[in-house]
Amino acid sequence: MLRCSRCGRTYPETFRLRCDCGGTLFVEGREFGFSPSGYLDIRRYLPHLPVKGIIPFPVPAITPTSEIDIGGIKAVFKLDYLQPSGSFKDRGTWVTVAKLLEEGIGEVVLDSSGNAALSFALYSLPAGIKLHAFVSYDTRREKVLLLQQLGAVVHYVDGDRMTVHDRAMEYAEENGLTYVTHWLNPYFIEGTKTIAFEAFEQFGVPDYALAPTGSGTLFLGLWKGFKELRKMGEIDKIPRLVAVQASGYESLCERSPFANSLADGIAIPRPPRLEDMKKALKETNGLCVSVSQSETEGALSWLKRAGFLVEPTSAVVLAGLWNLAEIGEIPEGSSVLLPLTGSGLKLTQCI
Amino acid sequence: MLRCSRCGRTYPETFRLRCDCGGTLFVEGREFGFSPSGYLDIRRYLPHLPVKGIIPFPVPAITPTSEIDIGGIKAVFKLDYLQPSGSFKDRGTWVTVAKLLEEGIGEVVLDSSGNAALSFALYSLPAGIKLHAFVSYDTRREKVLLLQQLGAVVHYVDGDRMTVHDRAMEYAEENGLTYVTHWLNPYFIEGTKTIAFEAFEQFGVPDYALAPTGSGTLFLGLWKGFKELRKMGEIDKIPRLVAVQASGYESLCERSPFANSLADGIAIPRPPRLEDMKKALKETNGLCVSVSQSETEGALSWLKRAGFLVEPTSAVVLAGLWNLAEIGEIPEGSSVLLPLTGSGLKLTQCI
Repeated sequence: MLRCSRCGRTYPETFRLRCDCGGTLFVEGREFGFSPSGYLDIRRYLPHLPVKGIIPFPVPAITPTSEIDIGGIKAVFKLDYLQPSGSFKDRGTWVTVAKLLEEGIGEVVLDSSGNAALSFALYSLPAGIKLHAFVSYDTRREKVLLLQQLGAVVHYVDGDRMTVHDRAMEYAEENGLTYVTHWLNPYFIEGTKTIAFEAFEQFGVPDYALAPTGSGTLFLGLWKGFKELRKMGEIDKIPRLVAVQASGYESLCERSPFANSLADGIAIPRPPRLEDMKKALKETNGLCVSVSQSETEGALSWLKRAGFLVEPTSAVVLAGLWNLAEIGEIPEGSSVLLPLTGSGLKLTQCI
Repeated sequence: MLRCSRCGRTYPETFRLRCDCGGTLFVEGREFGFSPSGYLDIRRYLPHLPVKGIIPFPVPAITPTSEIDIGGIKAVFKLDYLQPSGSFKDRGTWVTVAKLLEEGIGEVVLDSSGNAALSFALYSLPAGIKLHAFVSYDTRREKVLLLQQLGAVVHYVDGDRMTVHDRAMEYAEENGLTYVTHWLNPYFIEGTKTIAFEAFEQFGVPDYALAPTGSGTLFLGLWKGFKELRKMGEIDKIPRLVAVQASGYESLCERSPFANSLADGIAIPRPPRLEDMKKALKETNGLCVSVSQSETEGALSWLKRAGFLVEPTSAVVLAGLWNLAEIGEIPEGSSVLLPLTGSGLKLTQCI
């Protein structure tokens, strides 16, 4: 069942982006206890996912965690860039493609700064779903090349990330196609919530959970995953959620005058799920922190030396932790979950 | 305990590449039953690994499997390229670095066509171990760049893969440094054997297990892992092992006149563990198959369309399967394990 976060109206579990009232939708959590299966990949959480029938492939991984002490804080990095397309987005894509296959939807429209489209193309090609990917001209060339190799029809848009979003939506409407933006898609969040399930199985409940936050798909997935665990009676408390944003593109923190153009994955100044994110911040007594380009660079370099080859957007969580630790907002002795979202390894020309 | 595969002499579990008689070494398997821990990463198999004390990071993943029917054969792809450095080698590196840390070894020499050195650099930098990486001039430029960024001292050698091996060995000897070649290192095989443990937990014992086979680190790891499971009473039979080699570089199959230069990870015409590999083939009633460059290209393209972004060397297992299925050596109804070993995503300049 889908439920509107604004008016509470419910819908059957078919593919749908918004309530008729314009509100955003979430899939209602299952009512039974937490029951991971014996699988050692995302299918471990099938009992808690709206996936039935066809299993798309490749299958997303359970990703390892590595604990490092950072100034007395227990930082638990979760290597979620170790997914088939090189980003955590595979989790949401996988659930979404399962739902599209279930409904027999064969052609879709998506907009992305790169990773979401790449992820979708990787899963939609073997599933036989035709993808129209809307990207801006400044999307990294190697990502666009790979999109095309994976059979996506790439539509370039002259404009910023919000314009790309608008054009994709218009195109879908004009052509009677399904628009699958992860910015609104409730099934996408069902996939990202599994990061919370895994983290719980791997080391329990952290005091804080940080997420690079643009459209909020990871941030809201963490929120929903931990909330479901609480509802199922597995845990008592939910971590304080920390939205880490790129300076110049803040939607939750105060807007800064200088743009962090390195963290391109979260350069989303007006995300449609803003009210959901505000609610998550409020409910978890959460925090918002904004990081600059040079802070992102510093964190990226630190991560590389620690053995994590990630892309710049992933590094903001560490920069955010540094900032919050410095002002005492995250005190010594805390445990902190830091999902690393996107791989630093990208397409070479030989594949 | 280490045991020589030629004369049977044993040694304590310290870092050592060969027996005094010149024979190759293996770590003796543990004598108790199979007992995976609750971890959801490689630490799951700590009870069966010669790792004690310091745990190096990042921690290698448990990788997902995806099953696909190929002409009536159940092909189980194991996505082992989803490791922190982008290749299965992280498993062997991780165990090796743990052993080096245990012994306080702080400077080592390694030779590689790229992936092994990259993996080692990623783990040795956070561990504080200085790495001398010997590579040939035709090693892909982006791999060498990343090696340097990860603090490795890169030594270029003018010559083929065997010459690089000889130079590295000489340099280590002249400078009193530890030479850690994965071609001989028994601890490396302890890491790769965990692929067999995972595969067993994920879907049981396949009829056949294929491996891209140059130096034999994966091939021998699969052999040892399944043998240990049998010794522990978990399984009755061991899969028939299939060594898939690159044409022109065969050490087990008959040498072809045309070189497959695309599968550069297994272009190793005279591997030092050749006798071990022959024994594995004989004991498991195994097979050897050689694949050409165009067959590798075809398999790579198929894999991309199936959602697996791998490098050319990884594609040889599929080409090998096609060849063996065509001549009836792998019959319909068989189940086949196909580890995919290296990522097709490589370094971009922005990290």
